[in-house]
Amino acid sequence: MIVVMARGASEDEIRLVVERLEGCGFQAVVSRGAVQTTVEAVGADGRAPAGLESLLASGNVERIIPFAEPFKLASRQVRQDRTVVGVKGVRIGGPRLTVMAGPCSVESREQLLIVARAVTAAGADILRGGAFKPRTSPYDFQGLGVEGLKLLAAAGEETGLPVVTEVMSVDDVEVVMEFSDMLQVGARNMQNFPLLRRLGKVSAPVLLKRGPSATIKEWLLAAEYLLAGGNANVVLCERGIRTFETELRNTLDLAGVARVKELTHLPVIVDPSHATGRRSVIPAAARAAAAVGADGVMLEVHPEPERALSDGPQALTCEDFALLMQDLRSYWSGKSTDA
Amino acid sequence: MIVVMARGASEDEIRLVVERLEGCGFQAVVSRGAVQTTVEAVGADGRAPAGLESLLASGNVERIIPFAEPFKLASRQVRQDRTVVGVKGVRIGGPRLTVMAGPCSVESREQLLIVARAVTAAGADILRGGAFKPRTSPYDFQGLGVEGLKLLAAAGEETGLPVVTEVMSVDDVEVVMEFSDMLQVGARNMQNFPLLRRLGKVSAPVLLKRGPSATIKEWLLAAEYLLAGGNANVVLCERGIRTFETELRNTLDLAGVARVKELTHLPVIVDPSHATGRRSVIPAAARAAAAVGADGVMLEVHPEPERALSDGPQALTCEDFALLMQDLRSYWSGKSTDA
Amino acid sequence: MIVVMARGASEDEIRLVVERLEGCGFQAVVSRGAVQTTVEAVGADGRAPAGLESLLASGNVERIIPFAEPFKLASRQVRQDRTVVGVKGVRIGGPRLTVMAGPCSVESREQLLIVARAVTAAGADILRGGAFKPRTSPYDFQGLGVEGLKLLAAAGEETGLPVVTEVMSVDDVEVVMEFSDMLQVGARNMQNFPLLRRLGKVSAPVLLKRGPSATIKEWLLAAEYLLAGGNANVVLCERGIRTFETELRNTLDLAGVARVKELTHLPVIVDPSHATGRRSVIPAAARAAAAVGADGVMLEVHPEPERALSDGPQALTCEDFALLMQDLRSYWSGKSTDA
Amino acid sequence: MIVVMARGASEDEIRLVVERLEGCGFQAVVSRGAVQTTVEAVGADGRAPAGLESLLASGNVERIIPFAEPFKLASRQVRQDRTVVGVKGVRIGGPRLTVMAGPCSVESREQLLIVARAVTAAGADILRGGAFKPRTSPYDFQGLGVEGLKLLAAAGEETGLPVVTEVMSVDDVEVVMEFSDMLQVGARNMQNFPLLRRLGKVSAPVLLKRGPSATIKEWLLAAEYLLAGGNANVVLCERGIRTFETELRNTLDLAGVARVKELTHLPVIVDPSHATGRRSVIPAAARAAAAVGADGVMLEVHPEPERALSDGPQALTCEDFALLMQDLRSYWSGKSTDA
Repeated sequence: MIVVMARGASEDEIRLVVERLEGCGFQAVVSRGAVQTTVEAVGADGRAPAGLESLLASGNVERIIPFAEPFKLASRQVRQDRTVVGVKGVRIGGPRLTVMAGPCSVESREQLLIVARAVTAAGADILRGGAFKPRTSPYDFQGLGVEGLKLLAAAGEETGLPVVTEVMSVDDVEVVMEFSDMLQVGARNMQNFPLLRRLGKVSAPVLLKRGPSATIKEWLLAAEYLLAGGNANVVLCERGIRTFETELRNTLDLAGVARVKELTHLPVIVDPSHATGRRSVIPAAARAAAAVGADGVMLEVHPEPERALSDGPQALTCEDFALLMQDLRSYWSGKSTDA
Repeated sequence: MIVVMARGASEDEIRLVVERLEGCGFQAVVSRGAVQTTVEAVGADGRAPAGLESLLASGNVERIIPFAEPFKLASRQVRQDRTVVGVKGVRIGGPRLTVMAGPCSVESREQLLIVARAVTAAGADILRGGAFKPRTSPYDFQGLGVEGLKLLAAAGEETGLPVVTEVMSVDDVEVVMEFSDMLQVGARNMQNFPLLRRLGKVSAPVLLKRGPSATIKEWLLAAEYLLAGGNANVVLCERGIRTFETELRNTLDLAGVARVKELTHLPVIVDPSHATGRRSVIPAAARAAAAVGADGVMLEVHPEPERALSDGPQALTCEDFALLMQDLRSYWSGKSTDA
Repeated sequence: MIVVMARGASEDEIRLVVERLEGCGFQAVVSRGAVQTTVEAVGADGRAPAGLESLLASGNVERIIPFAEPFKLASRQVRQDRTVVGVKGVRIGGPRLTVMAGPCSVESREQLLIVARAVTAAGADILRGGAFKPRTSPYDFQGLGVEGLKLLAAAGEETGLPVVTEVMSVDDVEVVMEFSDMLQVGARNMQNFPLLRRLGKVSAPVLLKRGPSATIKEWLLAAEYLLAGGNANVVLCERGIRTFETELRNTLDLAGVARVKELTHLPVIVDPSHATGRRSVIPAAARAAAAVGADGVMLEVHPEPERALSDGPQALTCEDFALLMQDLRSYWSGKSTDA
Repeated sequence: MIVVMARGASEDEIRLVVERLEGCGFQAVVSRGAVQTTVEAVGADGRAPAGLESLLASGNVERIIPFAEPFKLASRQVRQDRTVVGVKGVRIGGPRLTVMAGPCSVESREQLLIVARAVTAAGADILRGGAFKPRTSPYDFQGLGVEGLKLLAAAGEETGLPVVTEVMSVDDVEVVMEFSDMLQVGARNMQNFPLLRRLGKVSAPVLLKRGPSATIKEWLLAAEYLLAGGNANVVLCERGIRTFETELRNTLDLAGVARVKELTHLPVIVDPSHATGRRSVIPAAARAAAAVGADGVMLEVHPEPERALSDGPQALTCEDFALLMQDLRSYWSGKSTDA
């Protein structure tokens, strides 16, 4: 159940609603939009509370909405205006296309700094890089771990870019938060519920990748774990789904991005690198992501892709990336560089 | 095996190569590009000819390429410059984005004329409409048949637009050719090989839709049936593939469009109406199709979508379509309206 | 709408119902079960007739069932007892597991006779073999055509087995009927509606393969085209669906066979050869098909699989087949060899 | 690289090989088969060691096999004889079909005991039940947690059955080990690599479910994480893959079970309950699993399925289960009840 406070409801009036809900044994989660505030109530047994209407009638409440979608806090039914997630000053979901770029894996200080400087010069907004790497085979390179995190933090400091990196385990949440500005949940962990519950309790923004075989509904329900835990700073990332087609690594669901933006108020970005796995089609896919209404793109860049320890075939060179940035910034009138 | 003639090879020199190939028992298919001509040789048993190199060495031949891809005539290995397919003066595959629009099914003279006039006024290039309709259920509306073809031809004449419509059966090829300018092979017929073989023998341009579960390789091999038969006027149409995701009707494989354009010289258009089945996301998907490099889009338009006999939920109104056209024409700098 | 005649309704009473339905402008299709007869009424516009209840109340009618499933004549709602399809004395759908076996393609008189004699000796019920072959590439072996049909008919005559073979086109229906006892609709033609409509008008039994990306509902609706046309002798064949898994050629949907048998009264067989594409797992898959309740299996057998012109890797040798037959006949108590 | 020790190689000879490998900086993992022992060597950088042949030539070594499959320790290349995994006296992978049964979720002491007694009486081998439940929605019942574990342990003690239950997180491994005999990795955690690495270090047997969109190769590589960590007691469980078909919950890949048994020496069981999600087809699917060569089945049983807190539609009643057990035990001659 969602309680939509009237416009202009005071903090005291909001607190009163929360207290009453909690007094009845429900969990209450407050979401503050640009215009209106909403309070969600969920009972301990997962069912929506009943019979609260009269209790709440006395407060400064505009409407009470019973749940229609299985995802609730993520739904646009609850919040009409779009969420903008701030990452150390970068605003994701506003009028400007956000570009996250960097190497798939942090391999060395030198490799990372070359890429970080190149993507900064080309106009990227956020630096990405993997320190903890989920790998299908136990015999593949598993990432530099904490050493990689430290290199990322240093590169972020030098370039002034916020840093996003993957966290694979509840036990790593604290150390990843210490060295980065945004926590990425990888596609294979989209339904790692203990991890989602833990990240619902942190204040850091979370980038939630869609699982390769997750439906849009499951993806939004995974986001719901974060929101229901109390973390409203969630950005979704489409990175390709698994289908019968093998010509590219995955099938990038761009029309699905348009659809998910109808269903949720959360920002949605696109990762054409993992989705296609093929350098030559990444620029076209990134342009299409911008055209379909994505709030940003995430791109892998490597100084020497042919020598990368992971996913070389899908990394752009620094030069490719600079060209693509010119294209993206000039291309898409909807999200200008200085909005 | 592909024999690439030298630039400036004369008709006599080309004919000589063809005669020698045929004299050895092979089928020879000539493709004339803007710059160079190629001759493909295929043996009656499906194997490439061997030992012809010396025979051909005397002609004005630049190179001989053994087959690497299972699709041959469709491959960019064979033909570097892009094919432009002309449909009664409209050029598909050139610098201008081609827009095909019209109702899913021709339902009546009045319905068709309203749509035809509206899409003409909004700047569409080709009129589409279904007379023979493949329907999953035998109890659904199956189209007006020849009566629908006549209405289409009349609407094309009045508006000056060329007409594209589906042909479902070898037996209908002649009548569909009589009343239309381009023959569409529907997604469910993509591997109807007798139909493909028949259409390889006609001169009319063919629009070949991708099967909902066809790989890119299978799609190009279906085109190969047409090309090997002798019909070089083939346009491909991506219309969504079948995946586990049910939020939209199909999953539109836009990155796949970028990939297929690397593999083939044939033009590729996109049908966001069938791909998504949801009016609200069609404009975004059409913009993304243009951005990813498609040569055109095909859109369903109905004067009253809620009363359509087929696929109403995916039809744009005439007003929606006019707005989208403005967007598409101004949007995409790569394919301008007057190129 | 389905009119279920009372047990013991006479031919006159049935004819009366048909006449009344047709008099109201509906198409009436009569299905005769072992115990009861049903008459389906479909309006010319695809809608079920309304207001007929009073008209029919006077006849010897047990119940009138409005349509709930999109497939109607194929539904078990209409007919509780299972359909048994006879193919020249072989009964498919009864207590005995039916085994169809033979080469993928008819390649020569000698090859076919070796296989036909071997499978007869091992206890097969029906001889299969392809004369018209749908091939993904135009450059692959396309079958011997009518010459292959004649060889099949001769092999059937010699061994006494009925013959099943694929028909790919409306134009070939007559010639295929002349030389065979059961017509196969291949997976890629499952939604070739003109072909289905044509086969609805013949008396020969039809084996309808499931399309590699067809849902169970779509498969039953394709069967509905045959039944609504008037041909009640339809056998379904599961042959694997297309999924992301590439370890085997397709994914054999055996639990789906159990489900489709709940939904329809038609017999269902399984083709483990095409489904898996891998000789070594075919016996296990055939046993599982019997265990899950399939009414039969279809198996490819070749005297020298490594020299087959098509699909060699999925063909059993004659010896493999004989061993599997012993296993199948002794294995499955539910369908004994002499039932 | 795999070093296959000669039959009869002594413990000293094995230790010598291990020491030499480790002395060169490699990790050495010893696998003891019924007949032969193998030692795998993996370099710290994930590459196989080179130049060791001469070093090892002096030992009692039969063969040295370079890696061909990406999964190594799980491969039948390494180990021809099948692994049998013991769970408190129950042997999985031997001649007898293992049956695991119990409720989806542990809901109460009473519910669990009713089921535990019923499945014991019917002849089940292992008691299953969920205490930590992965749920798509944060608002669904999440399981009783440690309280559920205690109830499971008590029910196991009363009935004498070993207990298997899911562990969702590295942090829960110890407590789940304390109260159960076999640890289940759920489908959504199949690529939770920190969890796999942790479970590679325990001695308890692990039941590794296939992810709903995992290829067979990825599944075996997930098992490889466990084996490479040192835990050889791994049982695989097929539970349906995600496809376009929605008639059943998932598509049960039974032919894939036959294939995976060719690729690995590990036991493979099947879960028809999750795979189909539909009570009526579970018995047929379980019979087919036995027929295809699975080493066991896992079945959900609930005293009152219509009142289950999770997955009621796929639970058998206690009576259904008893009937199915009779069928399974008498049915499958390959795996007899008293082997």
